[in-house]
Amino acid sequence: MNGVEIKNISKSFKETKALNDVSISFEQDKIYGLLGRNGAGKSTLLNIITNRLNADRGEVLIDGVSAWENSDAQRKIYMMSEKVLYPENMNGEAALKWSREFYPDFDMDYARKLANDFGLDLKKKVRSLSTGYVSIYKIIIALSVNTPYVFFDEPVLGLDANHRELFYKRLIEKYSENPFTVVLSTHLIEEIASIIEEIIIIQNGEIIQNDSCEHLLSQGYTVSGSASEVDKFIEGMEVIGIDTLGGLKSATVMGKIEASSVPDGIEIGKLDLQKLFIKLTNEQE
Amino acid sequence: MNGVEIKNISKSFKETKALNDVSISFEQDKIYGLLGRNGAGKSTLLNIITNRLNADRGEVLIDGVSAWENSDAQRKIYMMSEKVLYPENMNGEAALKWSREFYPDFDMDYARKLANDFGLDLKKKVRSLSTGYVSIYKIIIALSVNTPYVFFDEPVLGLDANHRELFYKRLIEKYSENPFTVVLSTHLIEEIASIIEEIIIIQNGEIIQNDSCEHLLSQGYTVSGSASEVDKFIEGMEVIGIDTLGGLKSATVMGKIEASSVPDGIEIGKLDLQKLFIKLTNEQE
Repeated sequence: MNGVEIKNISKSFKETKALNDVSISFEQDKIYGLLGRNGAGKSTLLNIITNRLNADRGEVLIDGVSAWENSDAQRKIYMMSEKVLYPENMNGEAALKWSREFYPDFDMDYARKLANDFGLDLKKKVRSLSTGYVSIYKIIIALSVNTPYVFFDEPVLGLDANHRELFYKRLIEKYSENPFTVVLSTHLIEEIASIIEEIIIIQNGEIIQNDSCEHLLSQGYTVSGSASEVDKFIEGMEVIGIDTLGGLKSATVMGKIEASSVPDGIEIGKLDLQKLFIKLTNEQE
Repeated sequence: MNGVEIKNISKSFKETKALNDVSISFEQDKIYGLLGRNGAGKSTLLNIITNRLNADRGEVLIDGVSAWENSDAQRKIYMMSEKVLYPENMNGEAALKWSREFYPDFDMDYARKLANDFGLDLKKKVRSLSTGYVSIYKIIIALSVNTPYVFFDEPVLGLDANHRELFYKRLIEKYSENPFTVVLSTHLIEEIASIIEEIIIIQNGEIIQNDSCEHLLSQGYTVSGSASEVDKFIEGMEVIGIDTLGGLKSATVMGKIEASSVPDGIEIGKLDLQKLFIKLTNEQE
């Protein structure tokens, strides 16, 4: 079977159970959001997939073959991770060429074009780059390697809004031209809500949601209008969040709403994925 | 006059003009968004205000008195900046006490309460903290120093969505109980849009916007509906952004819209600050 399958993976560090019997699949040519709070176990999982860490139990299959110490299987995956794994004293151009050695389908022309788009000076040493440009550097490699499976761990850390928008745009363009499996792990959840098809939420080392984005977002609504009208309308509903602005109010509610029951002055909108995530993963309040 | 006044500040590094004749004021007890792309000059400006850098020309006044090498004036300001300026081998508790030495109104009890809220273990050494928890550590100090002017430079870098929400909530609570001047410099623009009163946008070392948030956002709208109806409605308008989702379209347009001209099926919403920012600061496309 094609895809990346994670089967019954467990991993502990001293007394801390980082992952507890995690089983998920990343299918071919789909776009996933892998979401979780800081410390939930996302990075541990990603490190196990790429052999940077050994699981206590379970296995990872890439296109049906064990990924453990299997360089042919590993070559099908690219992981853009928080740590910079290439020689930092290289300049950008040299480090791109270095990446090409590992990934035979690396597209050097496209990488140079992206560097130009993002305003990255390839003559600069990688170690001299700011937080935002280190992220841009890693994004460029991840978009140029042309492996069937690409994992992005915090891709937009330190990027300004313009560069975040450019990243999402280039990612979608590339996917549209030549689909591949994309796994986005990020804290900027609302920004990727319209990009991802499938959502996996990890909490305390366990998978608590594994669903299509569409289905997950169909489970609730936002209700907006004047504060008094919104208060009246949402009485008795399961409210998971409230925003107020002057006399206006916007409530996030779970459950179904009959269109015919909506009075004038009340507006029903789409559920906010980030708010839903916060609700699902908040442990205390 | 009370407030922080920046008067005709210029600063160059080698051939690069980082700031060019910048004049702005931060008034008492207001909340500002200081926005700009990476490299626009924000950090240079913040470093000049806090004497970490000397301007080539111009001056900074704090409550009417020059801020340069004036420790009484500097004690009225707290700058949460990207660099960690306290001894990194201290544990959290010791580093909080160290901050109290500099800021006599530092509220130790409140700081400990915040640490508990955010799940920060104060026994851990500051240097062992993850990117997100370093930000949390700095947020706690900034919210506890009780100076009249507090500057936040990238406060939420690496924070998960839950902790970002908690930060905005605590900031608003604190401001509501005891107003002070808040300057938020961040790339997560949409998340602070409902918090800030005044917006200053810096681009290539110059101030390109200095306006109330309300006035700036009254200059445009979002137009949503089915793609074909939106296309028809926005014909001839100044469109600064388009989002599509399935058959639906959401366009960001500048200018006024007559309520009576809006057909059924078209929904008019608030301008998105982040989209407006991108439009105002994009130099090429």
